[in-house]
Amino acid sequence: MESDEGFKIAVEEAKKGAAEGGIPIGACLVSADGKVLGRGHNMRLQKSSPTIHAEIAALEDAGRQPASSYKGATMYTTLSPCDMCTGACILYKIGRVVLGENETFVGGEDYLKHRGIEVVNVRSAECEGLMRDFIRDHPEDWWVQNMHKKSS
Amino acid sequence: MESDEGFKIAVEEAKKGAAEGGIPIGACLVSADGKVLGRGHNMRLQKSSPTIHAEIAALEDAGRQPASSYKGATMYTTLSPCDMCTGACILYKIGRVVLGENETFVGGEDYLKHRGIEVVNVRSAECEGLMRDFIRDHPEDWWVQNMHKKSS
Repeated sequence: MESDEGFKIAVEEAKKGAAEGGIPIGACLVSADGKVLGRGHNMRLQKSSPTIHAEIAALEDAGRQPASSYKGATMYTTLSPCDMCTGACILYKIGRVVLGENETFVGGEDYLKHRGIEVVNVRSAECEGLMRDFIRDHPEDWWVQNMHKKSS
Repeated sequence: MESDEGFKIAVEEAKKGAAEGGIPIGACLVSADGKVLGRGHNMRLQKSSPTIHAEIAALEDAGRQPASSYKGATMYTTLSPCDMCTGACILYKIGRVVLGENETFVGGEDYLKHRGIEVVNVRSAECEGLMRDFIRDHPEDWWVQNMHKKSS
């Protein structure tokens, strides 16, 4: 199990999203030397935003950083990252992606690995529970644009 | 040559960015039936933003759309899309990416094609000129995080 502070913050962010009535996905970007660079959560519903996913929000919260800040950094996220957030991690040459679960959605994990990024799945029951509750209560806000669901 | 209205708007947006002192990259998202859904330009310098690239700005400007709006849509962009923007086009299942040039930067064109998205390179001297002028005048704002440059 991953017990990093970054993962705890990502879960806190997911819960903030849930409390706001949003999609409960949180993220936290931590530098190689353990500094929290940025944190955030999905704002799809709160801001009618198609692009402010949790990982994007965390990168944005970190602001413009020199390339050295991203080197060896970890993106903690409560859910397997979608294709856009996968691409964002590749763009900034983030070293590692630690994800909470991939039972409710499978994103670009294989492509991250193909591009040299380490991927760790924490298999967090808490993260999965947040997503399952949201999907049960707001299916119309989840299924519309998420077609890459696991068949299991 | 591509003479679509969408491409003209993307170039207009790139010029707006240049006028603001920003990185001159513009984009425009057009639906399959020719409706302009959104437009925008790179805001890296104007907003100290690591994620508001032109394509992201155009998607954000379009707001939340049903999946049907993206079906067969075209993302016009003045420059070959980076990995993040490549992923965003894949996420929303955009049908086609029309790019202005890939002489000053090569992004995720191969991966777009691999994921079934048509890619058209307009080879616009105007788009290339905007980028070459920017890179000449602000090399420190361009090279820091753009390593995938063409060797030619």
